[in-house]
Parts: sequence; C-alpha cells; structure tokens
Amino acid sequence: MTDEFDAYMPELIETRRRIHRRPETGWTEFETTALVAQRLESLGFEVHLGLEVIDPERVMGRSAGEAQAAQERARRAGVPEELLARMGGYTGCVGVLRTGRPGPVCAFRYDLDALPITEPTDPASGHLPAVEGFASVFPGKMHACGHDNHAAIGLAVARWARDHEADLRGTLKLIFQPAEEGARGAAAMAARGVVDDADWLICGHVGTTAGPGELQIADRGFMATTKFDADFKGCPSHAGSCPEKGRSALLAAANAAVMLSAIPRTSQGDTRVAVGKLVSGSARNITPADAHMEFEVRGETAEANEFMTERAEEVVRGAAAMTGVGVDLRRVGQGSTLVTTQAALDLLYEAARAVPGMKVMAAPPCPGSEDCTVLMHRVAERGGNPGYFLFGCSHHGHHRPDFDTQDTVSDKPGFEMWVQVLKRILG
Amino acid sequence: MTDEFDAYMPELIETRRRIHRRPETGWTEFETTALVAQRLESLGFEVHLGLEVIDPERVMGRSAGEAQAAQERARRAGVPEELLARMGGYTGCVGVLRTGRPGPVCAFRYDLDALPITEPTDPASGHLPAVEGFASVFPGKMHACGHDNHAAIGLAVARWARDHEADLRGTLKLIFQPAEEGARGAAAMAARGVVDDADWLICGHVGTTAGPGELQIADRGFMATTKFDADFKGCPSHAGSCPEKGRSALLAAANAAVMLSAIPRTSQGDTRVAVGKLVSGSARNITPADAHMEFEVRGETAEANEFMTERAEEVVRGAAAMTGVGVDLRRVGQGSTLVTTQAALDLLYEAARAVPGMKVMAAPPCPGSEDCTVLMHRVAERGGNPGYFLFGCSHHGHHRPDFDTQDTVSDKPGFEMWVQVLKRILG
Amino acid sequence: MTDEFDAYMPELIETRRRIHRRPETGWTEFETTALVAQRLESLGFEVHLGLEVIDPERVMGRSAGEAQAAQERARRAGVPEELLARMGGYTGCVGVLRTGRPGPVCAFRYDLDALPITEPTDPASGHLPAVEGFASVFPGKMHACGHDNHAAIGLAVARWARDHEADLRGTLKLIFQPAEEGARGAAAMAARGVVDDADWLICGHVGTTAGPGELQIADRGFMATTKFDADFKGCPSHAGSCPEKGRSALLAAANAAVMLSAIPRTSQGDTRVAVGKLVSGSARNITPADAHMEFEVRGETAEANEFMTERAEEVVRGAAAMTGVGVDLRRVGQGSTLVTTQAALDLLYEAARAVPGMKVMAAPPCPGSEDCTVLMHRVAERGGNPGYFLFGCSHHGHHRPDFDTQDTVSDKPGFEMWVQVLKRILG
Amino acid sequence: MTDEFDAYMPELIETRRRIHRRPETGWTEFETTALVAQRLESLGFEVHLGLEVIDPERVMGRSAGEAQAAQERARRAGVPEELLARMGGYTGCVGVLRTGRPGPVCAFRYDLDALPITEPTDPASGHLPAVEGFASVFPGKMHACGHDNHAAIGLAVARWARDHEADLRGTLKLIFQPAEEGARGAAAMAARGVVDDADWLICGHVGTTAGPGELQIADRGFMATTKFDADFKGCPSHAGSCPEKGRSALLAAANAAVMLSAIPRTSQGDTRVAVGKLVSGSARNITPADAHMEFEVRGETAEANEFMTERAEEVVRGAAAMTGVGVDLRRVGQGSTLVTTQAALDLLYEAARAVPGMKVMAAPPCPGSEDCTVLMHRVAERGGNPGYFLFGCSHHGHHRPDFDTQDTVSDKPGFEMWVQVLKRILG
Repeated sequence: MTDEFDAYMPELIETRRRIHRRPETGWTEFETTALVAQRLESLGFEVHLGLEVIDPERVMGRSAGEAQAAQERARRAGVPEELLARMGGYTGCVGVLRTGRPGPVCAFRYDLDALPITEPTDPASGHLPAVEGFASVFPGKMHACGHDNHAAIGLAVARWARDHEADLRGTLKLIFQPAEEGARGAAAMAARGVVDDADWLICGHVGTTAGPGELQIADRGFMATTKFDADFKGCPSHAGSCPEKGRSALLAAANAAVMLSAIPRTSQGDTRVAVGKLVSGSARNITPADAHMEFEVRGETAEANEFMTERAEEVVRGAAAMTGVGVDLRRVGQGSTLVTTQAALDLLYEAARAVPGMKVMAAPPCPGSEDCTVLMHRVAERGGNPGYFLFGCSHHGHHRPDFDTQDTVSDKPGFEMWVQVLKRILG
Repeated sequence: MTDEFDAYMPELIETRRRIHRRPETGWTEFETTALVAQRLESLGFEVHLGLEVIDPERVMGRSAGEAQAAQERARRAGVPEELLARMGGYTGCVGVLRTGRPGPVCAFRYDLDALPITEPTDPASGHLPAVEGFASVFPGKMHACGHDNHAAIGLAVARWARDHEADLRGTLKLIFQPAEEGARGAAAMAARGVVDDADWLICGHVGTTAGPGELQIADRGFMATTKFDADFKGCPSHAGSCPEKGRSALLAAANAAVMLSAIPRTSQGDTRVAVGKLVSGSARNITPADAHMEFEVRGETAEANEFMTERAEEVVRGAAAMTGVGVDLRRVGQGSTLVTTQAALDLLYEAARAVPGMKVMAAPPCPGSEDCTVLMHRVAERGGNPGYFLFGCSHHGHHRPDFDTQDTVSDKPGFEMWVQVLKRILG
Repeated sequence: MTDEFDAYMPELIETRRRIHRRPETGWTEFETTALVAQRLESLGFEVHLGLEVIDPERVMGRSAGEAQAAQERARRAGVPEELLARMGGYTGCVGVLRTGRPGPVCAFRYDLDALPITEPTDPASGHLPAVEGFASVFPGKMHACGHDNHAAIGLAVARWARDHEADLRGTLKLIFQPAEEGARGAAAMAARGVVDDADWLICGHVGTTAGPGELQIADRGFMATTKFDADFKGCPSHAGSCPEKGRSALLAAANAAVMLSAIPRTSQGDTRVAVGKLVSGSARNITPADAHMEFEVRGETAEANEFMTERAEEVVRGAAAMTGVGVDLRRVGQGSTLVTTQAALDLLYEAARAVPGMKVMAAPPCPGSEDCTVLMHRVAERGGNPGYFLFGCSHHGHHRPDFDTQDTVSDKPGFEMWVQVLKRILG
Repeated sequence: MTDEFDAYMPELIETRRRIHRRPETGWTEFETTALVAQRLESLGFEVHLGLEVIDPERVMGRSAGEAQAAQERARRAGVPEELLARMGGYTGCVGVLRTGRPGPVCAFRYDLDALPITEPTDPASGHLPAVEGFASVFPGKMHACGHDNHAAIGLAVARWARDHEADLRGTLKLIFQPAEEGARGAAAMAARGVVDDADWLICGHVGTTAGPGELQIADRGFMATTKFDADFKGCPSHAGSCPEKGRSALLAAANAAVMLSAIPRTSQGDTRVAVGKLVSGSARNITPADAHMEFEVRGETAEANEFMTERAEEVVRGAAAMTGVGVDLRRVGQGSTLVTTQAALDLLYEAARAVPGMKVMAAPPCPGSEDCTVLMHRVAERGGNPGYFLFGCSHHGHHRPDFDTQDTVSDKPGFEMWVQVLKRILG
C-alpha cells in the first residue's frame, strides 16, 4: 500500500547514504553542512551558516587544527569556496521557510556529526552499509548513531514543506546542529539565539529504546551531564638516576581517575562518573611530564550533576596539588535533562497515532545524554513547547561498528511523524 | 674470674629490674626520673631536672593529659612532692660531677622511656622477666628496647665515677633523656643547651646489631627522620540519606596513606615512609568526620629526609584539599644521621679492646633512627667529638613482647665499656 | 479536649523515659527485654524470649563478649535470673494475645536498641532529656533514634488490647526486635518464623521525614543494604630496619576504602557505599599487621544492592591479595526495600484519618534502611499484608546527640495510630 | 701535537655522523648492523649476524611489526638482500679477528640503538648535529645516548687491530649489541653464547658522570632492573546507560600505577619503581576495555630488584582481580648490577693512565641501568674479567633532544682508551 510519503523516500534514502559514506565528526561537518545548505537553498529556504548560527565563545570541544584540515578536505571534495567562506570555519546550518501567513514558529532540530569509529567495509561482514556499498570511506569515522538518518529526514521534511507551503502558516525553522556527540554543539547554537523565537521545538532520534514499528514519546529522561578534559603537566626526570627531580603527571592522573570514581553518591538523584580516556608518558624510564584525561559526570537532576561537577573539579585540582603537578581543566561538553510540556506531549501523541501501523508508547526514561536538551530548556524558559520522540529500528547498540538503522524501513515512519507534527503546528 | 667491676653488678641489675617493673612511656617518666635524680644526688652529683634540662618550646609528641595522669601516679607511688615540683611537669635529668681539676667536659647520654607494649607476665611463657618476677606491672607498657638497662648502667657509671673521683679530672655529665621512642626528647634537651659545653658525647645502645660478646663501634648509620601526626577534619552525614552532605575524613586519610607510600625514591640516599596508624570513623553509616593518622619518613641523608618531609606535607595537604577536608598536620619527632669523628672512633676502639673477652668490630650501618643523633650533631657543630657504640645481647628483635636483654650477661660489658671510655677522657 | 487515649499516656511516657535512661545497644538489650517481658506477662500475654524468637545461626553483628558483659550488668541491675535463663544470651521478645475468637493474626513490630552515642547530660545544654532528668546514665550509649518511644508505645498498645480484648477477634502479636541498628536483628527473627503466621504486619517509626502533627504512609522506599566487617591481617615489621618484611594491613584497607568508593554506579537503581570506620596500626614505626574496617552498601533495588555487594567483596579480597595481606570479610547486616500491599495502604490511610488533628500524607521515598523490611518481605511472600507508617516529631536529624522526640507530643498520635490499625484488623 | 691515533679520526667521525643521521631504535638496527658488518668484513673480520648472535627465545621487548617495517626501510635504503637474509629479521653483529697466535679471547662490547626522541633539525637551535648537518632524518628517532659514538669507535678499533694485527696474539671479538635501551638485547646475546669464550669483556660509555677530559673506571654501580609491559583487558559499556556492565581497564591500571609506586622500600638496598607510560580508553563515555602500561623496577642489589619484581607482579595481578579485569603481564627487559674483578680494574687504570691529558678517576656509583651487565655477569661466572669505563663529554643529560657528545673532542680519548686496553690484553 503506497501513500503520499512514498514519493519522498528514494531521495531520502539516497541522501542518507550519501551522508553515511562521508561521515564527519563534530565541528568538521563541512561537506554535510554544504550538502544541507545547498539543498535548502535550492528549495527556497533562507539559509544561515556557520558563524551565523554558532556563538564561537560558547563552542566546546572543538580542535582548530582538525577543523582546518577538514575544511581542506571539503575544499578538495568540491565544496564551493563561497559556502566555506560563509561558514567561517564553523559548521552547522539553519533553514527558514516563512509562509507569510500569521502563525507560530515551529523549529525542528537534527544533528549532523559522526563518531570516531571504524566501520566494517567488507561485504562478507554482513554489515548492511558494506553489503550495499555505502559504508564509510573515511577509516576511523562512522555514522554509528543515526545522525545521517536525522539529517536526511530533515531535508525530506524541507521538501515536503515546500511542496505543501500553500497549506501552511507561520514559520518553519529546520536546525541542523553540529557536534552533538560529546554534547558540544547545542550550547553554542542556543547562545546564538537560534531557538529564541521558537514556539515549538521538536527533537527526535532513531533507535535507542524504540524497536522496529515503535514510536515513543518522552516525558522525562536524559541525565544532565558535564564533559571535561584535563591536561596534567608535571616535570620529567630520569626515573633511575634522579626520580626526585620528576613530578609524575601519570601518578596525578591515576590518582585523580580513582578518586573521581570515588565521589560520593547523592540523594539529589542518580549520578554517573566515567573516566573514559587516559594517555600519559613517553618512555618507560622517564617520569611522565604529561597526562591527558577525558571524563564526564552525569546527574538525574540538575542539582545532582552540579554536585558531581563541583566535586570533580575539586578532585582534579587536588590530585594535581598533591603531587606538585599543574593541571589545565576544561569543560568541553554540557547537556541537560529532558524538559517538555503537556501541550507538546499531547501533540506528539496525536501525531504519532496518525502514522499508520506504528505502536505508540511512552519512552522509558533514558539514562544517556542528548544536548538538544540545552535547546529545549532555552525554549521552555521562554514559554515555548519543547518535545521529544523516538522512532524505532532494530540494533545491538548505538556507537558500535555494527550499528545499522535499516533505513528503508525505519526512516519512513520517522519522516511521517515529523510531517504529522508539522501539519498540527503549522497546518 | 672476678674483677673490679663485679662489685657494681648487683646494684646495677637490681636497679635495672626496678625500672623494668614500672615502665613509663615518653614524657611520663616521673618515677624513673625521680629514681635517677635521687640516686645521683645521694652520690653527690649536681642534679638538674625537668624544665631545667628541657626546652618546652621544642618538645614534640607530648600529651599534657598523659603527663598529668602519670604525675599523679608517681605521686601515689611515693615520689616526693619536692621533686615533682622541680620537674615542672617535664621528665628528664642531668647529673654533673665536677672534679675541680682542669680537663674536658665528658658527656654520656642514656634514655629512660618504655614502649606501649604489653609484656608477658605468665612465667609459663618462658619470658625471663616473667620467670624472674620483674615483668612490667603496667599493662600496655614495657621496656622492650633496653632503655632500662641504659639508665641502670648510667647510674652504675655515676657510682664508679664517684668511687674513682680522685683519679679523674674535668667534668662528667650524665644525661638521662626522656622520650627517645618517637625521636621526641633529644631536640628539647639540645635546645636547652645541655651538651653545649661537651667536648665529648658518647652514646650507646644494647642489642640491635650486636650479638652476645660483641662491642660494635659505629662510624655511620641511622637514618634522619621526621615523625608526623595528621588529624583530618571532615563533615559527618548520614551515608544513606544524604551522602552528598558529608566529607569523609576517612577517605582523605586513606588516599593520603596510599599516596604517602607512593612518594618517589630519591638519588640522594635510601628512604623510608611508614604510615603506622590510622583511626577513623564512628558508625558504619555515618560519613567519618575525623581521622587520626601517624606516620614517619626517613632518609639515609639529611637531604633525602628533607625531600621526603616536604613531599609528605604536600601529599597530606593535597589529600585533604582533594576531598574538601581540613587537616592539622604536626611534626612530632625528629632525628638525624649518625655523626662522629676520627678521634671518637679511635678512642672507642681503644676502650672496647680494653674490655676483656669481647669481640670488637665496626657496626654495620643501621637503618633505624636514634634521636641522640640530634645531640651528636649539636656537639659536632661546636667542635666536640660525638661517638656511638653497641654492646650485645641475644634477641629476636626490639619492640617485641618477648624482648629481653639477659641483663646479667649483657650489662657488665656495657658498663665496663663506658668506664673504659670515661678513663680515657677524664683519666 | 481529652479522650480515651489520654489515660494511657502517663504510663507510656514514664516507660519511654525509663528505657531512655538505660539505653542498650544491639544484642545487649537484656534490661529492656526483661522490662517488656514482665509487662507483657503481667498483662496476660503469652511471652516468648531470646532463643525462642531468635535463630542464632542467622544472627549478624553480635559480639559474644559484649552480650556477656551486658547480661552481667542486667543481673546487677536486678533482672531476675529466671528471665535471663529463658533468654539464653539473646535479647528480643514476642508477646501474643489470643482472643479465642476466629480472626486474622495481626503483628506489630517495635525495635529495642540504642546507639553508641554519648548523650548530653548537662541541663544547661537545653537537651530535653537532660533538662527533665531522664538522659542516659550509660556514657557512650543513647536512644537517639526513637526506639525507646517505639517500645513504650508497643507496651501501651498491649495494655489497650488487654483492656479491649472483649471487642477483639483473632490474634495480636507484638514483636519487640533487638538490634535494628546495623540491620542485624530482623533476619534472625524472620528465620525463627515469628511472622510466618501473620496476616498483617504493621511497622512504624517516629520522626525521619514526618514533622510534628503528620502521619505519613509509605508505599515504597528504603534501600536494600548489606553491612560488612573486614579484618585485614598483614605482617608486622620495623618500618625503618626491614620494611620489606612487613605486609601493611593499613595500606590494604586504605586502598580498599578508596576502591570501594569507586565501585561504579548502576542503571539498576540508585546506590550507596560508605566506609564508616577504619582502625589500624599500633606504633608509628611498625608496619601495621591488623586493620578493622566497617562498611555498607545500599541499593534502591535488590539488584542494585546485589551488584554493590558482589563488587564490594571483589574489591576487598583484591585489595588484600594486591598487598599480600589476608582478610576475613563478614556480612553483618542485611536490609531489604519496602514492600506493601494496596490493602495495607488503604487500611493505613483509613486508620490515619481516624486520628484527630493529624495531617495524613504519603511518605516520600526514604533513602535510609530499615530491617523490618526483612520481616515485611517474609510476610508478603506468604500472602500477608505488610504496611509502614511514620508519626512525626521535630528534630535536626536522627543519630545525633541532640536528638529528641518530644514524647509528650509525638507519642500520643503514634499510639492512637496503632490502636486505629488494630481496631480495623481485629475489631 | 699529533699522534698515531689522529689518522683514524676522520673516518671515525664520519662513521659516527652517518649513524647519527639514520638512527634506529632497538631491534630495528638493520642499516646500522649492515654498515658494521660490511666494514668488518672489508677489514677481514669473521662476521656473525642476526640469528647467529641472538637467541630469539630470549629476545625481550621486540615488535615483529616494527622489525618488519624497518627491514623494508633498510631494503629501500640499499641494504643488500644477502645481508638481510643472513640477519633473519634480527639485528646485531659480532666480528672476530683471530691472530692465530695463542692468547686470550678479548671481547669489547658496543651498542647500536637509538631512542624514540625527535631531534632538533633547525640550525638556529644551536644544536650541533643540526648546525653541522648530521641531525636525524627520521622524525621521532634520535641517537641521544651516544650509541652512535660507541659503534663508530668499535669500527675504528677494528681498523686499528687490523693495522696492528702482527703485534697481537689471541682473539679479538667485537660485539655490536642491539636494543640496549630498555635493557632488552644483552640477554639474547648472552643466551646465544657470544661471550662464553671471553677471558676479558670490556664495556664503556660516553658521558653520563664523566665530564670532558675525564676517564672514569667503575668498580660498582648500576641498578639491577626488570622492565614490564602490562595489558589490562576489561569490558566496555556505555558509561551512562549501563555502567554496571563495564569493567574499567583504566581504573585497574590507575590503581596499579598508584600501588606500584607504593611498594615499600627495602633494607636490601636502594630501589626504584617507575610507571612510565599508560594509555587507556577510546571515547569519554565508554568504559575503557583496554589499558597498556609500561613500567620498571630497579634495585641496588639483585635481592632488592627481586623484591621489587615480585611485589610488582603481585600488585598488578591484584589490581586486575580487584576490578574484575584480566591482565597480560610480561617481563620485557632485564639488567644486572655491575660486576668486575681486581685484574680488570688494574688493567683499566693502567690503560687510562696511558691516554695522554686525561684525568683518571673512579666512577661514582651509577643509579642507572646498563644491560651489558648481563654479559659481564656471564663472563664473571665463567672466570673471566669484566670491566667498565666511561669517557667524558659535556652534556645536560642523556635522553634529551639537546644531547650532544662533541664527537671531535670526546671520541679520540674513548678510542685511545680501547686501544690501550687492547694492547694490554692481546699485545
């Protein structure tokens, strides 16, 4: 049985696979931003790029060197100089469709970035992108979280809106956010004001707790989170001939890693602390002068996360002082808890029930983090209605080399859901 | 075969056993100080007591409460009020014998204090003091290092000197030091100037590396040491209902204990670090607000000990800061390395060879600590000759409940050695 | 305005203060058990004592030495030999009133034990028990959690039931449990089967989240918990002369304390871990051969607590192995989560609303632990109805030296609540 | 003033600079081995290569992948296929000159490998190799310890011996050892028996404690050492959504790093422990499943090193067990203390005094490690005479990017010293 949405699917799938083949990690999405911008402009959207939608003062976890190198790669891949100039070194894009008729501002948010994971490319692996020939061509990078699906669906929604513009009122704002992984990009977009006029902000995700044929509406969940990088700076020495002259950054970081894990639990809500990376030292017999550590804390409530954040900073600075080592501690990511309104919940349930053949249900509270929550809080604080839903696929876990979304099955309900939401807000 | 020294032995052994039965730990040696003072005065020595020989500003590791209680006990045991008043709350005693004839000042140093160890009192244990009925009558206190022998020998030397005063010249100074254990007492005597006029300062010890029939002369050894007490002050909370309100002094102390042990070695000489005691917490479910820790560092050289001392202070303060806990860190003991002169070595070897039947040898460098080193450094700095020897006994280790010196065998050579030294300096 | 309950209050208050004056910690409640037993017998209850109601195989956290000493104290305080003999060294008591009329078995549970806290006795402190002359006469022991109120109310309920026996049916079972603190006593009573015939088991507590004038009904809460004692056994050595011969139990315990705190959080529910006590070492310069540690873990769910329990055991054994130290690790307490039924909730709400002048509300989920949960689970598993409520007082926190329940105000509503429950079950 | 040795210097300096330009780290010295082998063969030495002089079973710390890649590089650099085939994948070389006249076997040992350090190449740095154009052409590799000087001097000695063969008797054995850094190569040569026939084994080093114009003879020193690699294997999990499923290899390694540093000191001699490298984790929010750690222990005596080695293994295995993580722990390097004989000392002093203009002195005991000690112990055990000397240069420390030996000044005395030794043994 075909319907009006089928016509959009070939382009959606092709776009998604085009993005999947050339995955770009956070703050390096120059090709993806260009693809989105060109498509939106061709559809008549007003397009804002890079520094127009990003406050560089609030950017977290961006490597200038990597951004520079990625820009070069994009240039070689044919991204027009004019677009790169408009971006100004920063990725991300917002497309606006003004109907000219009075009505609310309806914002949808999609994310663009991939992960530092190597995708299987051997068809014998059975991994669908490898079998069908759209696996990543960049070793060490992979869309293993479905942001490629999100971006492609966003563009299909753009086309649908253009096709049905006559039936709409108010303003549609499609936000394509960089650097969701690590919860790095949303704060810079929020600070630039991209959702400040939004009456509605709807966000969504493929997979996670939603299985095939399911649409889940979220009324709570996500942990608030703070991401940190710490660089300890000690003093080298020959560990045999003059250990007393050395100050081991490795020892400081090791003690910090243990004591971070030992921050007490809090009655303010469930918490997390994870030291995910530690790299220190050069030769076996040289007191390590440098240690790089990446860690994060989370809290079920803002208070709980704030507690963890403050204690973590105390621990890291104390661990350095304890061993006579210096430390550069930086917050490199920030996420909030999920916030929504009854109006948004009602609208999302109604929209979901209009998608044929789907099982509609409440989403279980998610212990992960999503930085669209930062945008959602901004909207809620200004009296708008933020909402969040999940559309399902089958998977063994996100962020894995074998992650796949079965796009030809999963993406149509996702696309339809967004259209149903759009119809209800701007219809 | 009997000789001139045999006559002194019965009193020496009786005195030693009298002291052994009533052991007094550091800064509580009121009965022992009184016994020594009374004996010296009866022999015609000029006697200085307590605050006359102790600089209270430089006293380390003294509990005013314990001193007060011990004074009461001594009072009940019959120590005359007049003597207690002269002591002024502080133990220790110096006896001076001035021959009136020109000559050097010869100082001998003996220590008075016992250990917080419970001595076996059951004769079935085979422990000699128990078998012969002179085991400690104070549970939890014991002379398990031979300071009782030292004090008794010092008094025998006093009697011998009095008996042979006509053959002597110059001045004999017998220093009976409190609180050697923990290296607490010497600094306060040094600061009071008790060895400032000494041309010679001879110190000695029973046992340690010297076996039965051995006299060992030391030309180096002892580690410099600093003793610390740390009291961590956190914040209590119910560990179930509001762990976030607590600040665990226990966790701070535990981390400090581990990281103290992890202070690096140094090329400036061998080192030690020992956390000997940690007491923290009240109930299982209350975040511990208090932790008391006792530790020490040592160094083969002054530099090595200074390195350990500085790093230890850094670690303890850092451990507290890292967990939001306060700390009161105090130096409660101080010892130096052994210092001597060629003149002192020559004299000690000559004296030792005059003691019949003894094997004379160099002492191996001792890794322990002895606070007479503080007095020895003071003498050396002023151009005097400090010297150190060991007289042997059989033992399984000092500071053990089964420690015994076999006084009837060990103490005569010790006594003779000191007399031979005395003859050579003041003869 | 007086009512039928006022007549019971003078005896209730006097009994409570009598118990308050002579606080007995867990497994030493010989005087309190005797007082309860004598009162119950005088009222015609069938009374079961000590080993009749305690399974010694399931007793946790009991010191035989302390129990022995407490028995002696009780003997000297006039507890009849016959009662002590019936107890058989174990405290706790169950009183049964059989109406002879068909009806359910209704069990109420009260706890008896005090805490190792020193109560202020100076009236100038303003502490009510000190002001009114019923402060603890046992230094270091105090009823600082209201178990004295519980026991006294239980006895008042006994008297009321006797007075109104003609109006009742079925069986009333009053359970006076020892050793609630540390979650030690309930498991031994459960194992002995004391609640196996209970159709209803109602438990309650003064204070905690309930303020003055409040009755709170609990439908969830309490964390499951496991309490542990660990005794590390190392090897002593002189820390200066032969540190390599030592095995520091202190270092093992310190590392265990840190790493216990570092057990990861779990998605199975909120957790706790608390190292509440650590005592190790003798002298500063002796490698500590012994360390005693007390700690506990908690979990919002049984799974979460089981996770913490397993990881904790792994950490402690690993910490010992890592430093060549032995360890004796024992589970000394066990609590569950709160379980109830709709029938129990309905009944408790109805009963509460019958107590005049009280604000009735749901209790917030309590993060603490209560070992009556073990009995409640036993009843629930057998199809009975367990319920739990709180009756309020003003306080700054339980387990503090300044804890007071304002008995003349708080205890009447508590008493009435139990009577209202009783009327509804056996009326 | 010129002498017979001046004629050898231009080739020596050129050879040294040729080796300096193409530094090869341990077990990858294919070009250097080829250069040495070709020169020795051209001089008529019997040459043994690679597997002929290396026991592959006893090789430590060799990466097969790196060796393979280096072999390819050497092939591209023109090393003849025949030589590579003879090496069999293993570097190192021994040249033998048999005079045919009866006499002792005299072995000299030189090392070949460079360090993983990046050398400054900008002449503006003032670094002599950069100024004079012989700085390393391999980024990340540098001769920063003088092994290039050693190898070049060894070849000059070969030429001198050939030139003076008529005046010599016995056998000269020149050993060019791979992989001295990390103490990896000597054991494999010793096991292959290359010094088993040596009556004399003389080893030497440029710099360290010897300043310009100094020749130092060593009678003791070097710490025994064991080098370890540890690979911890945990279990990954999403740190937010299911931390309880993870087993952090990072936490295990961090705790191991701290507790390794906390291994007690020993009275058996001064010790060292150094954790030089720790690399763990991938993403911030993934529980790290892998951790790679490199560390080493040292001891002033064999006993002290053995103590450290055993305790270190205990700590690493315990740290893994404590956190439910697996570990692969491997010994990757081994060095001994210095051993020599009076005959060797006498001969070295006599030879040194024959070098004009040099200050001859005893070397202070060196706290570092040198794996020629393994060969020296092998010779001593078989009754031969091992000896060790230092020839000076000015430097700020070995293993630094700015290390330079001032070859035109330092290498002539070094060369002469070896010749003087050679004359005395085989002359």
